[in-house]
Amino acid sequence: MMGAPVRTSERRDPDVINPWLTGFSCIRCQMELPVGDYPEGCPICLSRGTPASVRPVYGRLPDVVGNPQKRGMARYADWLPYRQWTSLGEGSTSCISAQPLADHMGMAGIFIKNEGQNPSGSHKDRVSGLTVTRACDVGARGIVAASSGNAGASLALYAAAAGLRCSIVATPALQPLHRRAITATGARLITAGDSLERWKTVERMAREGWFPATNYLAPPVGSNAFGVEGLKTLAFELFEDLGAERLDAIFVPTSRGDLLWGLFQGFHQLREAGFIATLPRLFAIEPFPRISRILAGESLDGSYPGSTSLYSIAGSTVTYQAVEAIRRSHGDAVTVVDADVHRDFELLAQYGFYLELSSAATLTGLRTLIEHGAIARESCAVLIATSHGYKDQIVDGAAR
Amino acid sequence: MMGAPVRTSERRDPDVINPWLTGFSCIRCQMELPVGDYPEGCPICLSRGTPASVRPVYGRLPDVVGNPQKRGMARYADWLPYRQWTSLGEGSTSCISAQPLADHMGMAGIFIKNEGQNPSGSHKDRVSGLTVTRACDVGARGIVAASSGNAGASLALYAAAAGLRCSIVATPALQPLHRRAITATGARLITAGDSLERWKTVERMAREGWFPATNYLAPPVGSNAFGVEGLKTLAFELFEDLGAERLDAIFVPTSRGDLLWGLFQGFHQLREAGFIATLPRLFAIEPFPRISRILAGESLDGSYPGSTSLYSIAGSTVTYQAVEAIRRSHGDAVTVVDADVHRDFELLAQYGFYLELSSAATLTGLRTLIEHGAIARESCAVLIATSHGYKDQIVDGAAR
Repeated sequence: MMGAPVRTSERRDPDVINPWLTGFSCIRCQMELPVGDYPEGCPICLSRGTPASVRPVYGRLPDVVGNPQKRGMARYADWLPYRQWTSLGEGSTSCISAQPLADHMGMAGIFIKNEGQNPSGSHKDRVSGLTVTRACDVGARGIVAASSGNAGASLALYAAAAGLRCSIVATPALQPLHRRAITATGARLITAGDSLERWKTVERMAREGWFPATNYLAPPVGSNAFGVEGLKTLAFELFEDLGAERLDAIFVPTSRGDLLWGLFQGFHQLREAGFIATLPRLFAIEPFPRISRILAGESLDGSYPGSTSLYSIAGSTVTYQAVEAIRRSHGDAVTVVDADVHRDFELLAQYGFYLELSSAATLTGLRTLIEHGAIARESCAVLIATSHGYKDQIVDGAAR
Repeated sequence: MMGAPVRTSERRDPDVINPWLTGFSCIRCQMELPVGDYPEGCPICLSRGTPASVRPVYGRLPDVVGNPQKRGMARYADWLPYRQWTSLGEGSTSCISAQPLADHMGMAGIFIKNEGQNPSGSHKDRVSGLTVTRACDVGARGIVAASSGNAGASLALYAAAAGLRCSIVATPALQPLHRRAITATGARLITAGDSLERWKTVERMAREGWFPATNYLAPPVGSNAFGVEGLKTLAFELFEDLGAERLDAIFVPTSRGDLLWGLFQGFHQLREAGFIATLPRLFAIEPFPRISRILAGESLDGSYPGSTSLYSIAGSTVTYQAVEAIRRSHGDAVTVVDADVHRDFELLAQYGFYLELSSAATLTGLRTLIEHGAIARESCAVLIATSHGYKDQIVDGAAR
């Protein structure tokens, strides 16, 4: 076990932190832990060489899903570890019925949840507000994250709004449009040679007092648990948008599974609180087999590299949280091929949805399941569009 | 007077069109007209060589501003010519207090209304849903618009959602990122030599049965009056976001003034209906003197060219509607310099707001008025961020 830089908050504000937050719990061994930061996840699982994320534990859950007086993520403040956070207007994104597309695909219904309508243009904004607020609450000297683009652009913007120093560690593959979005905020952009080297930089800075927003272990754990908790609000919104009866199958662009886990945790708590009877199935969409290989029996320790133009869901490693969210929701992982995704990007645009390629991959995943007879045509599919089409770099007229 | 292709709707659906819509009226001579489409504006003013837009007239205005059961633009359906339209989730964008920025600028308050959170990433989505619905209602063979980017990308997406053919006429200066957004939807992109030639193409297609969404006259009128009416909802949201007492001065990126007019019309109707006592002042931000020259006495007939990197608010002509909205709200036009806007783009990002350069120009406009003592530091400024920072093309690491 490495010397994990665990911090326990010394300066909790009773008006801001949720008074029902009683501690944290390992998502694998269920070990209970005090309120604090666990960038290396559960210390017991870490010492066993099987890192696993932790999740916040609440003494009770709210009686209502959304506060009707609020909009955006603030509707669900009572379900979150902090009840106030640095906000730029995240949440309350639209969930649109794409019935003509559903008819074309031979499905009862397709709904598209457009997370590109968040302030920085991706679902990461649901994470960043809480993460930045946590970093400020513990008096961090700044915040640091490894990112392929969307997470870094989001975190840099929220850190700027909070007046917190920010460093984003990326590889040379970082798209120029994200480079501009990150550096414009005044954040420092650090370029590392490759993904693994990024994590070493994050780890070193974490030991120097910077608050790590993302993983730095290999095998990895999820991002900061306060932040990931914000992704539960996507489940709450889908419940309020669609009602329990249309929550059948949800398609999620996936790299290290923060979004999968957040959705699972949100639906799980809705079930615990009696709002839904069953969990919708979560389908992780990946551009080459990673989670699929773990589900088929390979090791979480392994590296499963591949090549793809879907930069937001690239990466060669798998987290326990991703696998757990799929297993417990009776979902699956679906591998898609870039060329098919480029076609589905255009098909989606032809029905009125202009999405990042990584998000268009959800339709390709749905198509694959339909072809394999793995999804009932009478059911409804929800595609999580994590970001909009302006997030893909155009070079010589095409996305690269 | 040219043979204007005026169409009067033959197939009005009483459940969809607003039953209180009684006709249209010229915004200059107040001539009353039946419900219909007036792509060349008021026929009397046109025959006098002084083209002017028309506006919808309602027999009564609603008793409440927003329907609390709805979100997005649908909250204000009773204020609009159609009460249902092709929707992709437009409206309910965030309005965020930028207090640290206000402190930095020495203002009581600055609020940023983030229209980049609309489905296609700009305020044009408030226009496109209504315009496309109108075009479908009159059985048009397709829809056509001249655009520098945002309007075309928005209209193409909404036309795709409605299953309506779409042609966008642009100049060779159209940014590749908009080119991709438009063509991905299946819309036809027509490249004309210059701005004037674009309008000739739109005019020719209008005579062939295509529904013109934008102006094709020189001197120009505003865009389709059903569509422009959607921009009133931005005024309604600002009223609901901020309350009457913080609606002092509103800064609006401006080219041909659809947004200025829509805002004015929304606030004007709020006053008519008794919700506010006075109109907020509307300040048009322009990258070289155009409206400023008209306000100083020059002719609306003239061409006032200039060079700018703020492509969304370029153009060399001025509409009557823009001047009227400024005069009647006791506002003004403010000219900004590109280099200052690039600096304010960075300043905004450093406070958490990543905006299109044309939108960042609102802060430059505010700064100019502060320096000239033309705005009280005790007042609140609202900056309309019409689009997000991913709408500027990055070439060699910088926006061009």
